[in-house]
Amino acid sequence: MQKIDSTGYVIQNIERADQKVIEGLAECGVSTVHEAQGRKGLLADYIRPIYPGARIAGSAVTILSPPCDNWMVHVAIEQLQPGDIMVLGTTNPSNAGYFGDLLATSAQARGCIGLVIDAGVRDIADLTKMGFPVWSKAIHAQGTVKETLGSVNVQIICANQLVYPGDIIIADDDGVCVVRRDEASQVLEKAEERNKNEAAKRERFASGELGLDIYGMRERLSKKGLKYVE
Amino acid sequence: MQKIDSTGYVIQNIERADQKVIEGLAECGVSTVHEAQGRKGLLADYIRPIYPGARIAGSAVTILSPPCDNWMVHVAIEQLQPGDIMVLGTTNPSNAGYFGDLLATSAQARGCIGLVIDAGVRDIADLTKMGFPVWSKAIHAQGTVKETLGSVNVQIICANQLVYPGDIIIADDDGVCVVRRDEASQVLEKAEERNKNEAAKRERFASGELGLDIYGMRERLSKKGLKYVE
Amino acid sequence: MQKIDSTGYVIQNIERADQKVIEGLAECGVSTVHEAQGRKGLLADYIRPIYPGARIAGSAVTILSPPCDNWMVHVAIEQLQPGDIMVLGTTNPSNAGYFGDLLATSAQARGCIGLVIDAGVRDIADLTKMGFPVWSKAIHAQGTVKETLGSVNVQIICANQLVYPGDIIIADDDGVCVVRRDEASQVLEKAEERNKNEAAKRERFASGELGLDIYGMRERLSKKGLKYVE
Amino acid sequence: MQKIDSTGYVIQNIERADQKVIEGLAECGVSTVHEAQGRKGLLADYIRPIYPGARIAGSAVTILSPPCDNWMVHVAIEQLQPGDIMVLGTTNPSNAGYFGDLLATSAQARGCIGLVIDAGVRDIADLTKMGFPVWSKAIHAQGTVKETLGSVNVQIICANQLVYPGDIIIADDDGVCVVRRDEASQVLEKAEERNKNEAAKRERFASGELGLDIYGMRERLSKKGLKYVE
Amino acid sequence: MQKIDSTGYVIQNIERADQKVIEGLAECGVSTVHEAQGRKGLLADYIRPIYPGARIAGSAVTILSPPCDNWMVHVAIEQLQPGDIMVLGTTNPSNAGYFGDLLATSAQARGCIGLVIDAGVRDIADLTKMGFPVWSKAIHAQGTVKETLGSVNVQIICANQLVYPGDIIIADDDGVCVVRRDEASQVLEKAEERNKNEAAKRERFASGELGLDIYGMRERLSKKGLKYVE
Amino acid sequence: MQKIDSTGYVIQNIERADQKVIEGLAECGVSTVHEAQGRKGLLADYIRPIYPGARIAGSAVTILSPPCDNWMVHVAIEQLQPGDIMVLGTTNPSNAGYFGDLLATSAQARGCIGLVIDAGVRDIADLTKMGFPVWSKAIHAQGTVKETLGSVNVQIICANQLVYPGDIIIADDDGVCVVRRDEASQVLEKAEERNKNEAAKRERFASGELGLDIYGMRERLSKKGLKYVE
Repeated sequence: MQKIDSTGYVIQNIERADQKVIEGLAECGVSTVHEAQGRKGLLADYIRPIYPGARIAGSAVTILSPPCDNWMVHVAIEQLQPGDIMVLGTTNPSNAGYFGDLLATSAQARGCIGLVIDAGVRDIADLTKMGFPVWSKAIHAQGTVKETLGSVNVQIICANQLVYPGDIIIADDDGVCVVRRDEASQVLEKAEERNKNEAAKRERFASGELGLDIYGMRERLSKKGLKYVE
Repeated sequence: MQKIDSTGYVIQNIERADQKVIEGLAECGVSTVHEAQGRKGLLADYIRPIYPGARIAGSAVTILSPPCDNWMVHVAIEQLQPGDIMVLGTTNPSNAGYFGDLLATSAQARGCIGLVIDAGVRDIADLTKMGFPVWSKAIHAQGTVKETLGSVNVQIICANQLVYPGDIIIADDDGVCVVRRDEASQVLEKAEERNKNEAAKRERFASGELGLDIYGMRERLSKKGLKYVE
Repeated sequence: MQKIDSTGYVIQNIERADQKVIEGLAECGVSTVHEAQGRKGLLADYIRPIYPGARIAGSAVTILSPPCDNWMVHVAIEQLQPGDIMVLGTTNPSNAGYFGDLLATSAQARGCIGLVIDAGVRDIADLTKMGFPVWSKAIHAQGTVKETLGSVNVQIICANQLVYPGDIIIADDDGVCVVRRDEASQVLEKAEERNKNEAAKRERFASGELGLDIYGMRERLSKKGLKYVE
Repeated sequence: MQKIDSTGYVIQNIERADQKVIEGLAECGVSTVHEAQGRKGLLADYIRPIYPGARIAGSAVTILSPPCDNWMVHVAIEQLQPGDIMVLGTTNPSNAGYFGDLLATSAQARGCIGLVIDAGVRDIADLTKMGFPVWSKAIHAQGTVKETLGSVNVQIICANQLVYPGDIIIADDDGVCVVRRDEASQVLEKAEERNKNEAAKRERFASGELGLDIYGMRERLSKKGLKYVE
Repeated sequence: MQKIDSTGYVIQNIERADQKVIEGLAECGVSTVHEAQGRKGLLADYIRPIYPGARIAGSAVTILSPPCDNWMVHVAIEQLQPGDIMVLGTTNPSNAGYFGDLLATSAQARGCIGLVIDAGVRDIADLTKMGFPVWSKAIHAQGTVKETLGSVNVQIICANQLVYPGDIIIADDDGVCVVRRDEASQVLEKAEERNKNEAAKRERFASGELGLDIYGMRERLSKKGLKYVE
Repeated sequence: MQKIDSTGYVIQNIERADQKVIEGLAECGVSTVHEAQGRKGLLADYIRPIYPGARIAGSAVTILSPPCDNWMVHVAIEQLQPGDIMVLGTTNPSNAGYFGDLLATSAQARGCIGLVIDAGVRDIADLTKMGFPVWSKAIHAQGTVKETLGSVNVQIICANQLVYPGDIIIADDDGVCVVRRDEASQVLEKAEERNKNEAAKRERFASGELGLDIYGMRERLSKKGLKYVE
């Protein structure tokens, strides 16, 4: 993993995780993956999708940007490979609109499948029509400048999480989760197990069984002192 | 009405309001009911539905939960009767994801029609598909623990409103309103009157009449000193 | 332009911009117009549409209202002409629900096409059905009173922007932008030029060309010191 | 305890708690009292003192006020007895400045020792000079009106807590806590025990002993799986 | 009054209000002046002083700055005259630290008496020692750039208020208020009257008289339906 | 640097930076150090000191804590060496009061000089008397539990910054900055240079020279198009 966290660098040819693992994680979704990896890696809940219904996973191409300056997005797009997700953190908080339909067209042309951005985005109607999903802190038409260097594919902080280039990003209606590349297979395994387990439980719940009984909670609740009164 | 506001209790067999009154309130909707009961009972506006278009009313099964701990939801589900709405307040603010599709399956199996939660919810895509509406403070995948007791069917504070078990909850795209059980019939009567009155007014407005004339406001405005200038 | 910013006034027969210019700006949309006029005029990003997909432009009929008091909306409706947009600012912050389906019916009957409000709105489901778009700070059922005078068609501050009566308002999924009447034609010209320019660029981006090359950024990035490493 | 939560009422001659109990709770302070009563009763942390260093306890004279309307404060002052604390909640959120030095002079003349307000306050410099402490949501010069009735000495919600008239309020630099009158003696007993206990612990901590040993935590940590590595 | 609201301009030799009027307004303070001018002109309550106890009034030298760019502050300092107050608004929200002790030294050398800034400030300890008061949205060490033009002495929006160059700014522990130059004498007159009136009232309040009697509120409260119960 | 970011670990005997370097950085202060290291490392501006006037620097003993659970603070205190600063991040946001005067007594007994916490703190009055400075997200009396493991001296995210154990923390009235151990000497050098440079500039500013001239800005401003008008 790259340790660079400074501006002025573009790390090329980062390693990506196995595509099958990535697809498996996408199918599991954010909540399950988050649980499967011991409840870490969840981005702050102010990061929301611009439209409902998208669910993606991919390798992170990270972008470190100055506030209100989207120059590095152009630099990052050259580094994209099919299936990648751009993840943008800023050196100082900003709600400006770093990204719109032109950049989405360019990113999509290189196979990029989405953007996670700890800042603002615009051209929402067009992005929705294009089917280019974005998870952002804000929707804001505010234009940005191209004056100051940031970096591409260095480690960044995005919505209170550390993201390394090549990490796997899972994003859906529940939010965004990051998984380290070297933990991905193991996390997938646990997530799929969890899913099977949940499928079985779902049937029992649907038939009217209670979690109190399925999980055998009654005794522990009683020991803790729970009292039933009329 | 129960006065218990402590942790460690489950009040069983609470009284519910008449189902006809509940259905009547559902039809009137949040804004009308809020007005009809003298503008009280409205939950804070940070409580938002996870998908648009739902409108429900039901009896409150209240849940008092510790922060980041959803144990009491399992306990509460056993107390549910068809038509009930779960209302969850916390002893300390939390945005964690207390509730997801498994718990919704369990609650739905017992006839529960929705959840109002002063905390977070997850599995949004599944809940939307299931048609299980939730009004929440946050959407967050963050997992919770099952370590500390809360209570079920005690009085709670939810989004800056006091809710007693058995209160009627009305929830739609405008937010959430609570009505005391012993005031419900009277509130419904006023709400329906209001609705009729509004239907008549709507026609007059649609035909181009002005509120200034319908409500006879011109004189009072003039007395207050309103000046028309070019 | 009116300089009045006090309460107690209704300015009648304000001037409006040319309808063709207004329609042209609507077609360009908020982000493009904001850029075309030198990145000014954008309302704060907390102003959001109550439903996705609307895009409108029109002349501002401004409303200055006391907190939690919607009396002036009735006064304003009489001043509306077909194609107008109401823009409401308050003398003190409020999230109350100043506007609902009855007022929307009245406004629509006079040809008003939407509302921008630095406060709350209610009857969301009905407004959506009616196709009456609102951009607001909050969705809140909270009722308002009719006790204190404000003004109509005076200059107001709405979401951190100054709005004069007769200004052109553009509103879509990206937010809301205000354009001065005497700058409107020039802004439209630049916006349309920008649109053409973007259409050409979109094709090049779609075909895989990079912004780095289209905008000739490589040399400047290099001069600033950007380093490519493996 | 009064159950009235409506506007238009002034409850006179409410019962107060024993002054010795009140004084005892003041000495213990907010954090200790909050712990002693099972961690309930704490107002939301956005309620902050206008100046540091005050610590008070007293009986709550509650005020339910409309947004931006301070009429009921005048009504409440007549109900004050020496040692009382005014506690104000609103029917709808407001940051307006409900209270300043004139009202403080009037309240102080009747023996009132402070104000807790889920809204704004002004004349901060004067209140500081007078030594009249206020815990508020906001500092804001915004004036209020006197148009709409609220109530005095009914149950209110203040900063996400239910407060009954005659409840004991404890307020210091840590925030504000409410104790029910009929639980006050018991809470005081536990709080004082806690204080003694803490005094003993403080000495041991000061001498370098560790909480790990004082509380015997090592074994439980180890059982939970805590690993010490270099 | 200048109508320019664009970037790229420095308006020189703006007119200022009479120094005696300014001093009179300073003595009255923010809350009184705000009331005296009909409750307008108050900046949003998120603008807070960096240390307590300062009370100033002066002529506004306005600064319109890009986000995270403090270049225009240097330009503005040349335009300062003794007694002036700098007022800075941004073209896009920013919490960066635009101003610190070096700029304060420079501004103070030219007679400037304070800063109101809808952004961040730093070197708080030094500014406090220097006695250079600042009212700001944030305290933040974040550095800014000097890349993009703004303007000096054009009309700006600062914390949701319109400020013209040469307006009178009053700032104290209660916040910040702006008064138009051509209304200043009249506002001062009313403010001083108000002050006298308040002094008289303060004595009556201090002696135990009630606002209910001083303002003759009892009859109107009774007519509105206020009920006194035990 | 440790790469562990999981719960259940205590890393012992972490390396610390040279004490002279630490003292040098303390003297420079947050704003200067932040600038000297290329404007990185600044914690979010919601982290504020509980009392004004403290300025410290020390080695970070990091704490990763579950929400509303302060168990790991006890574990961390055993790892403290004289001059250390505790830095606490949570696995999920929490405003609870993790730390009070007892823990401060214990930490102080081991030579700890302060705490930076992305959560709440209590016993403010006592901490102020003790002279134990804390920079926190909230002041809140809310008690915490001791149920779930976290870690000590693993890498954490605190207020949107990555902190490694042994990093140097600088904290004062302007906020908090983190410096990597292997960059510390170099950063100190640049910071001291910057300080000298600023001292010289301060004198010139104090004598009335303008930044426009000291930094030679006039030509560049003119080239950018700045216009001076009357």
